[in-house]
Amino acid sequence: MDPVFPFAIVLPVRGEGALAHELHQQLRAAILDGRLAAGSQLPATRRVAAALRVARNTVVTAYDLLVAEGYAIPRTGAKATVANVAARRPVRQRRVAQRLEDPRLNPTWRTPFMSGSGTSRAARGFQLGEPEHRYFPHDIWRRLSAHALRGWAKGPFTHPESEGIAPLREAIAQHTAFSRAVACTKDDVVVTGGAQQAFDLLARLLITSNRTKVAVEEPGYPPLRAALIAAGGQLVPIPVDDEGLRVEQLPSDVRIVCVTPSHQFPSGAALSLRRRMMLLDFARSRDAVIIEDDYDGEFRYGGRPLDALQTLDRDALVFYVGTFSKSLFPSLRKGFVVVPPWARSALIALKQRADWHCDPITQLTLAAFIRDGHLARYVRRMQSIYAARREALLDGLRIDLGKWLQPIPSLAGLHLAARIVARERAAAVTARVRRHAPGMQPISDYSLAPPERPALVFGYGAIEASDIRATTQRLRRALQSL
Amino acid sequence: MDPVFPFAIVLPVRGEGALAHELHQQLRAAILDGRLAAGSQLPATRRVAAALRVARNTVVTAYDLLVAEGYAIPRTGAKATVANVAARRPVRQRRVAQRLEDPRLNPTWRTPFMSGSGTSRAARGFQLGEPEHRYFPHDIWRRLSAHALRGWAKGPFTHPESEGIAPLREAIAQHTAFSRAVACTKDDVVVTGGAQQAFDLLARLLITSNRTKVAVEEPGYPPLRAALIAAGGQLVPIPVDDEGLRVEQLPSDVRIVCVTPSHQFPSGAALSLRRRMMLLDFARSRDAVIIEDDYDGEFRYGGRPLDALQTLDRDALVFYVGTFSKSLFPSLRKGFVVVPPWARSALIALKQRADWHCDPITQLTLAAFIRDGHLARYVRRMQSIYAARREALLDGLRIDLGKWLQPIPSLAGLHLAARIVARERAAAVTARVRRHAPGMQPISDYSLAPPERPALVFGYGAIEASDIRATTQRLRRALQSL
Repeated sequence: MDPVFPFAIVLPVRGEGALAHELHQQLRAAILDGRLAAGSQLPATRRVAAALRVARNTVVTAYDLLVAEGYAIPRTGAKATVANVAARRPVRQRRVAQRLEDPRLNPTWRTPFMSGSGTSRAARGFQLGEPEHRYFPHDIWRRLSAHALRGWAKGPFTHPESEGIAPLREAIAQHTAFSRAVACTKDDVVVTGGAQQAFDLLARLLITSNRTKVAVEEPGYPPLRAALIAAGGQLVPIPVDDEGLRVEQLPSDVRIVCVTPSHQFPSGAALSLRRRMMLLDFARSRDAVIIEDDYDGEFRYGGRPLDALQTLDRDALVFYVGTFSKSLFPSLRKGFVVVPPWARSALIALKQRADWHCDPITQLTLAAFIRDGHLARYVRRMQSIYAARREALLDGLRIDLGKWLQPIPSLAGLHLAARIVARERAAAVTARVRRHAPGMQPISDYSLAPPERPALVFGYGAIEASDIRATTQRLRRALQSL
Repeated sequence: MDPVFPFAIVLPVRGEGALAHELHQQLRAAILDGRLAAGSQLPATRRVAAALRVARNTVVTAYDLLVAEGYAIPRTGAKATVANVAARRPVRQRRVAQRLEDPRLNPTWRTPFMSGSGTSRAARGFQLGEPEHRYFPHDIWRRLSAHALRGWAKGPFTHPESEGIAPLREAIAQHTAFSRAVACTKDDVVVTGGAQQAFDLLARLLITSNRTKVAVEEPGYPPLRAALIAAGGQLVPIPVDDEGLRVEQLPSDVRIVCVTPSHQFPSGAALSLRRRMMLLDFARSRDAVIIEDDYDGEFRYGGRPLDALQTLDRDALVFYVGTFSKSLFPSLRKGFVVVPPWARSALIALKQRADWHCDPITQLTLAAFIRDGHLARYVRRMQSIYAARREALLDGLRIDLGKWLQPIPSLAGLHLAARIVARERAAAVTARVRRHAPGMQPISDYSLAPPERPALVFGYGAIEASDIRATTQRLRRALQSL
């Protein structure tokens, strides 16, 4: 066959009308993707008809359609040439690229996820949410991971359970019961892709879009707020003080209360027992539920820890969210929910719809890491390291910066907040501190409204004690010249 | 201090009213979690007052509150005893456990995720969606994984990009451009937790709950439908025939069209070029978008493959969803979207809200696996293995079962569908086949309405050629006795 086109045309055996249409479509596709180059001549209809064994009129019809649509340009007394459609393409792409508020898109992405310098990956030092990596037993993790891969290689390629593999749920239940007195068995645990997926799934599970009111702490954790907003939740910011969430300010029509009782994010305050009981009373009497985010409660410095809300709850109203992002590392992407029995199957169903399940190799590795005692050992070790950093930060705040900053009492976690003493100079103090203590974030970064009492938040997960003190000393000199 | 309680009570320095309330709350918490045993006597108010250094009246008030709430039972002439609140607990838990249609829950979980025997993990043999595991180069994967872990151990514990790490997006773009002629660079790729997360994110991105009409193939893929329904999509089932989706039946108000053009799930038909162009025309003229699910198009058996819809699209209307679940293994949980530029930042924002990012170790491992050519080699190898199985199945259907079953033409993928010739005996034939060919599923398992033409679907991903033929021979005998 005479190769009239630089590609194959395959036509079905049919009436000529359908053939013309098919030929037109295939030629148009070839023009669109450049197989028929712009400016080149279309082969003579007679040649095409002979090569494809169709009536010449079929080819004429197809060409006419191409011309009518602008894919080919007729030339008087000559063959039609292929139009330069590629030239049109970038224009169109530019146009759509600019439609960021495209009506076809849900507007959820317009809420910030992380605020302030938290979005920048370059910031280090006092960066929040970044634990230390230098003491992590990488060799053990690598060994357990290889072991998991070898075990997994023996079986067929099936999907594991959406709620998490049983050995991991078992390990999480034991660890959480032991370290946080959370009452649970493996059947209460659902493994998630980090705490973030837990928030996202719970938001979707519990929120009716544009109707459900959700109380969040003010200041609070922006990624949680972003997930709640994405699910259509109507946020009600509730202030926090040194006893944590001001429970008495909860409006009665709130259906979900999100709270960080062991270590308020980001102020660091612990929710007092009085408020814990008030909150449980509120939930019971108002038919509300509680999302308890225990993101770094494993690291505690003195003082008897208060029971988790989940521990005190007798009405199955608390969804307890735990994570290994602080105790191990954030990119592990493993968190979990201890879920009340009435919501369990729905949560698992939603996890299945969201991404079916978490990857089994990491689940097996983490299960072995917990089961063999490595997690408990590592947390103990890191606790003493973080305790020294916290001491250095408290010393620095007191000795070097006492004139400007006043720490907010806090007995847990990987960060500390400090109020700015001279409120009227808050902006200047913040700017100086930000310059000399990279990673530090003003509490306003976590607030929906400008905070009544300006404060600064210092993470000490990824900065050594000696660097902390050196920084506060530098800061002292910088602030003195204010 | 006289230990009047078997635990510490810590009271703030305040007015007596607040103290009574605090004491009441702490005692109630102790009763609730069993630290004060049911039936035991509360210590004398005088002793408690002395031990805690509060007025006796404070203790009396706290006790009165406990009695009023039923946590303590007054005894005439004796000390009050602790009520058996634990006994109340199981009753309450049972009650809530039964509230499966609890109004606090979104009803999304009520849709089935996988239908028919697909939900059972025991089924093997002709099971759909399960690729072969015996030839997977586990040693290479383990080596690349260990290498990824060692590299990752060197840096701090930060979050990688939500859209996927650059080396993986680069590898995916190259691989997809090469194997599927999809026009993309790494900047068009967003890595997801399997195709399922891609569906879920796209559903949430593009659907306005209870308003957006979404066309789905009938029969089609139940987990996709489940994700669309979870996002509030109004499904419009569109029938498929041997040319794939019957595009001409799309109602004009459909905003999203979900389609499996290379290998219709589950019928196996390819969407004809004519219909592809019609579909793109439809989307352009109706301002609709297309979700192209290319779940197993990498395995092709003869015939020139048709271009992907994404390749033909000049209006940035196609979201191309790819996955490594079939070409590698499903529990890898890695898929991706080639996303039009106008929707890219919104999709990444939603991925961030959903679970922040996929785990970097698996991403690094997969990136190296693709970059070093292992994926292409493995797909080539498996293609010849699957081709032999497909031949065995086609032989078996023709030689052994031609009287009862008629294969639906199909040139790709890991499964084949066959129509039941004698429609009136469909139920009996299905039952026999199901008994002798475990894993086989009737096409009705994937249909929203009873299918016009009953058919059976056979996966050949996880069954050897010899077993396939042995099964069809057994089946022949079983069907002859019908």
